[in-house]
Amino acid sequence: MEHKPDGSPVRFYFDFSSPYAYLASQVIDGICARHGRPVDWRPILLGAIMQHTGSEPLMAQPLKGDYSMRDLARCARAQGAPLSFPDPCPFLSVVPARALYWLKDRDEAAARRLGQRLFLETFGHGRTITTPEAVRDIAGECGIDMTGFEDAIAGPDLKQRLREEVDVAVAAGVCGAPYFIVDDEPFWGADRIDHLDRWLESGGW
Amino acid sequence: MEHKPDGSPVRFYFDFSSPYAYLASQVIDGICARHGRPVDWRPILLGAIMQHTGSEPLMAQPLKGDYSMRDLARCARAQGAPLSFPDPCPFLSVVPARALYWLKDRDEAAARRLGQRLFLETFGHGRTITTPEAVRDIAGECGIDMTGFEDAIAGPDLKQRLREEVDVAVAAGVCGAPYFIVDDEPFWGADRIDHLDRWLESGGW
Repeated sequence: MEHKPDGSPVRFYFDFSSPYAYLASQVIDGICARHGRPVDWRPILLGAIMQHTGSEPLMAQPLKGDYSMRDLARCARAQGAPLSFPDPCPFLSVVPARALYWLKDRDEAAARRLGQRLFLETFGHGRTITTPEAVRDIAGECGIDMTGFEDAIAGPDLKQRLREEVDVAVAAGVCGAPYFIVDDEPFWGADRIDHLDRWLESGGW
Repeated sequence: MEHKPDGSPVRFYFDFSSPYAYLASQVIDGICARHGRPVDWRPILLGAIMQHTGSEPLMAQPLKGDYSMRDLARCARAQGAPLSFPDPCPFLSVVPARALYWLKDRDEAAARRLGQRLFLETFGHGRTITTPEAVRDIAGECGIDMTGFEDAIAGPDLKQRLREEVDVAVAAGVCGAPYFIVDDEPFWGADRIDHLDRWLESGGW
């Protein structure tokens, strides 16, 4: 298989309301950086993806929901990440998702930093991230200037942008979150980051 | 957390029709043996489990099915396991499941050996394992005597036994396959074998 050590980005699809995506979000930049690869953070909406896959949210499924809560806590302990749930949870993640695209168009590195921090605040510390005010406050704590964002967030352009990003994701085969694409190789799930890491290391197998 | 290095068995729940359980089946005995733990092989029926979880078979789900075929092939290459599919697939696994319980009651070690071999034949080499004749032939190739099994397989006792095992599994929280229980700690999925291994090593975290 062809190895492309050309520094092209690893695409990272996620929904801010996915706790497994939270766990991934705290380590993915560091892992990809070791291989000279930046991460292209792309929020999507799992609800829209599930209209295509026909799935229910994992946490809402009998037996699987209970197991997943236990697995999540164990995974969080394994990677030393704090775990807490905002109220309500699951929550609608359109605001932070649109905010990230808004910032991404202006400062890619800041968008990555904000994405990681929003995840940490909501699933590490149980903080709400679903309002423009909450996103702006958290950005401010990271030293990121969001002037102009609150006017844009309610406008048609950002709404349309997020819709298009979800369509592109579905067309690329994205069936859940977190979901990564390395060159043309897809990896679904926080539990596939070890394969992704080996793939970047070896160029594939 | 309490460590129990007492050699108590690791419970391994699986359906012979699960290709991810196949991948697990080829490595789990070796991993547990390194920690002085035998493996308690317990076939179940995913169809019955799914009546509780409300899930569809993974391979039948839009987007997820395509991804999983690719992921499976990649996982098989990663562990050097051959991969081939019997026709039809998915298939009804009641016969090999009952056969395994029949043998388990007579010779636990032989049942482990047969389970591993049935998986290898069907998902490694695409061979049918759904009839008593096929199971008997494969057992014969492993030097395992199944005399008496063909009379028992159609009888009410083995049917009832498998039903009860599935009920016990559901009561224990088993929500898919492969599913492992180490002492009281559950691990779901072939992709959690690394956590299971670390758990056995460390006694938990």
